[in-house]
Amino acid sequence: MIDQVAVDMTHGGGGRAMADLISDLFIRHLGNPILARGDDGAVVDTPGARLVLSTDGHVVAPLFFPGGDIGVLSVHGTINDLAMMGARPVYMTAGFVLEEGFPLADLDRIVGSMGKAARAAGVQVVSGDTKVVEKGKGDGVFITTTGLGAVPDGVAISAAHARPGHAILLSGTIGDHGVAILSKRENLGFETDILSDTAALHGLVAAMVAAVPDIAVLRDPTRGGLAAALNEIAAASRVGMVLDEAAIPIRPDVAAACELLGLDPLNTANEGKLIAICPAERSGRLLEAMRSHPLGRAAAIIGTVTEDPATIVQMETSFGGARVVDWMSGEQLPRIC
Amino acid sequence: MIDQVAVDMTHGGGGRAMADLISDLFIRHLGNPILARGDDGAVVDTPGARLVLSTDGHVVAPLFFPGGDIGVLSVHGTINDLAMMGARPVYMTAGFVLEEGFPLADLDRIVGSMGKAARAAGVQVVSGDTKVVEKGKGDGVFITTTGLGAVPDGVAISAAHARPGHAILLSGTIGDHGVAILSKRENLGFETDILSDTAALHGLVAAMVAAVPDIAVLRDPTRGGLAAALNEIAAASRVGMVLDEAAIPIRPDVAAACELLGLDPLNTANEGKLIAICPAERSGRLLEAMRSHPLGRAAAIIGTVTEDPATIVQMETSFGGARVVDWMSGEQLPRIC
Repeated sequence: MIDQVAVDMTHGGGGRAMADLISDLFIRHLGNPILARGDDGAVVDTPGARLVLSTDGHVVAPLFFPGGDIGVLSVHGTINDLAMMGARPVYMTAGFVLEEGFPLADLDRIVGSMGKAARAAGVQVVSGDTKVVEKGKGDGVFITTTGLGAVPDGVAISAAHARPGHAILLSGTIGDHGVAILSKRENLGFETDILSDTAALHGLVAAMVAAVPDIAVLRDPTRGGLAAALNEIAAASRVGMVLDEAAIPIRPDVAAACELLGLDPLNTANEGKLIAICPAERSGRLLEAMRSHPLGRAAAIIGTVTEDPATIVQMETSFGGARVVDWMSGEQLPRIC
Repeated sequence: MIDQVAVDMTHGGGGRAMADLISDLFIRHLGNPILARGDDGAVVDTPGARLVLSTDGHVVAPLFFPGGDIGVLSVHGTINDLAMMGARPVYMTAGFVLEEGFPLADLDRIVGSMGKAARAAGVQVVSGDTKVVEKGKGDGVFITTTGLGAVPDGVAISAAHARPGHAILLSGTIGDHGVAILSKRENLGFETDILSDTAALHGLVAAMVAAVPDIAVLRDPTRGGLAAALNEIAAASRVGMVLDEAAIPIRPDVAAACELLGLDPLNTANEGKLIAICPAERSGRLLEAMRSHPLGRAAAIIGTVTEDPATIVQMETSFGGARVVDWMSGEQLPRIC
């Protein structure tokens, strides 16, 4: 039984304190028959012939932020990595690195968020691990989640599949997550209602794949924002891109906050948005499917894939000029996810 | 291209520095066609109808120790968790939390160890993630690995499957890893040649399952040592155990070091040993199969499962008495793995 208020080194020692933490806190929030077996690994039925494995570490600071916390982020992040491969997320594992002295009430709240997010997404957390490091050797809690999903037959989505002439779509406004985090981190003296957009995107993706089965590329623009994600796709597919700045959705308050913080919204992180690339003739149908889903109401066609061996992403600006959209031109945003 | 000597915050920012680190260092050591695709997740073929998923965080201090490093440990640890379910390890993911200022040469050495260990075991690292935290918010590098394996038909190994009358076997000497780590951590003033026993146990397990398909339980006694692992099994199976102290293999120098350090070898960590429990009438055959494998040469039958609703693990001592073997009676050993 947990009768302490903070993590101490015994919680990582492999003894009874760790066993109690697992049974009292982790199993309570994340429990399912597979996790409850208490084995070193989780035996699961294969969810399909083609599987997707994806892993993601989470070190966001602060741990609690407007619109979410590290727990919900760690579940959504891994679900989204699976969804970006066109996969249905099925199982998840979670590894925790806890800092000595971290309040157990905060851990309880975080793991509670994870359980809620996993249940909402229909994903089971089937295996986990807990390690504890001395005070000053960590930062509260780091969470590494790994997801296993199944790819339906006929779906072949990859960053390498963009082709000249394809349309580039974006599911909604950019920069919300990055600004929500920074608004709590710095003493910036601005009041804002901006919330992280953290969301599980697999439902949106399922609706999109049903409407347009030959979607070429899906990618969630997280760390590094839209600019990094588009450059990654351009490099993997050996293509260029031309974006239309006026078509890229952004909330006015996010735009204003970015201005204030000296950030480029194109480099600012998102946790509930996706980029989709598909044959131009199907872009209208895909846009309609996206706008019909609650997480794609503000979707837009934002550009076109071009032939360009130099794999440059360009943007036609709202003022009529053009500029190169590079990976990261503004300030670095550490620990955004 | 990496032209720096230490990790800095840009390596975690999602920009070009991170992309370069991944392509120059991680792909070089861990590369395979699946990882090289550079997608958010890895599409893999299903290796079987019944899968095992297991995750393990690694925070060992020091990062380099006699007989291994955190990299090799992170690969062996997850392979062994899969093997303890009777599974053949096939795929692995790796998530890194790097501390700003960590020498890239050390990271290179660690990821090199991972690549070598994975290749030796026939396991592919198919997906990864890198995060960077500020100096003083981490401790060099933490690695969370997750493994996916396939369980052969007919194999049903679980900590809950021990039954009264079953024999308890151990694959070799205990305490080597814990003593090897501590010999480098404390200024203890003793010279020792003791190496960590870190090893991938899936080959040994395959030989054991081939000889005795109805093995009931497998468990690697890592954190918390033999005592914690046996107590976990006893609790999961609702049984007791009686051990024979004289039958438990231990190197004389490890016994001497434990004496010096005030440790109980039963609580001291191992990274290349396993406990097996099977019907008594097959224990001779299982022992022979274990001793025929390089990682089981010192295997021994160390006790018997008993009927005991109180799930107590007892030991008949070499002096003719008996004592309870509890989870963790000695000092805690933080960050042993």
